[in-house]
Amino acid sequence: MAPQGQPSAVPDDGLTTRQRRNRALLVVHTGEMKGKSTAAFGLALRAWNQGWPIGVFQFVKSAKWKVGEEHALRTLGDSGQGGTVAWHKMGEGWSWTRKAGTADDHAANAREGWEQVKRDLAAQTYRFYVLDEFTYPMTWGWVDVDEVVRVLRDRPGDQHVVITGRGAAPALVEAADLVMETHKVKHPMDAGQKGQRGIEW
Amino acid sequence: MAPQGQPSAVPDDGLTTRQRRNRALLVVHTGEMKGKSTAAFGLALRAWNQGWPIGVFQFVKSAKWKVGEEHALRTLGDSGQGGTVAWHKMGEGWSWTRKAGTADDHAANAREGWEQVKRDLAAQTYRFYVLDEFTYPMTWGWVDVDEVVRVLRDRPGDQHVVITGRGAAPALVEAADLVMETHKVKHPMDAGQKGQRGIEW
Repeated sequence: MAPQGQPSAVPDDGLTTRQRRNRALLVVHTGEMKGKSTAAFGLALRAWNQGWPIGVFQFVKSAKWKVGEEHALRTLGDSGQGGTVAWHKMGEGWSWTRKAGTADDHAANAREGWEQVKRDLAAQTYRFYVLDEFTYPMTWGWVDVDEVVRVLRDRPGDQHVVITGRGAAPALVEAADLVMETHKVKHPMDAGQKGQRGIEW
Repeated sequence: MAPQGQPSAVPDDGLTTRQRRNRALLVVHTGEMKGKSTAAFGLALRAWNQGWPIGVFQFVKSAKWKVGEEHALRTLGDSGQGGTVAWHKMGEGWSWTRKAGTADDHAANAREGWEQVKRDLAAQTYRFYVLDEFTYPMTWGWVDVDEVVRVLRDRPGDQHVVITGRGAAPALVEAADLVMETHKVKHPMDAGQKGQRGIEW
């Protein structure tokens, strides 16, 4: 059953219920399964329905895994019935860069992507951000975790940020308002099935 | 990092790789958080992108929790760029019933919804089904788990079915190809925040 929306405790933080309710969230979807991105894009449907501008930043190049989500979100953004959708992809060149991506460019691309996220947060370009697979550039040392935490903590306005990927750093989990972990109980690949279209991408 | 789509073992089941790859899946999203429905609707974006007819059956009445997903999926279905979307809601009357829902009707509505799912599976009306919060009518004894498992196991054609809800019955988990469990690591309601629009619904 869905929770009834009642807090389990009321903190002594000097905020009114309305202020607390409307505080923008930092959400982390981590764990072992691809469901973490899927759930982030599902969450984006709600943001779209609120009419919020949405910015998606794909931090790991993937030929086809997210094509369905991208087509759907772009179609929704173009429908004029909800929020706008800007979809930025690493590897195929971020939308603000022109050079083609090569293997050597990945670290630089990831850093450049993060710099763009910082500019957009400062400018309050979007109301809802998906930083997809953003844990990996942090894990690989391309982007500094402490800086990410500091920038997100100090972001202005009402900007919700969802970060996905395995192995979220402890400092990021600590900074997050909501952390969701997906666990595989059973997966068809265990039974010899390969990924299939419509399900895996 | 996304898995590379390689099976960890190849079963001796007499199927070719192609047959195994294209076998329709029964997916169960269970666990303690609302992310399970969100992930199911995220998965529906991929099905939509494949041009598959999608049928959503909401088994628990909810005033506003799913309005964002419903608006988004309906908009996608109407866009003509992907699959069609049929959205059936319990409590407001299934789309094939005319009577208004009352508290006493819930068990009957749930059974009627399941009968409609059975008819649609037999007729192969959809290619992708979301039976949202369908675990509850089973938990409450309104719908027989063994019958559900039998009907799903014997469903014809290439019909993917995703079932969401807490406390999935062991027989259902056993029958499923993929089972995903979401765990709360941290939730803003723990810190006194109530659910907020754009995030919780």
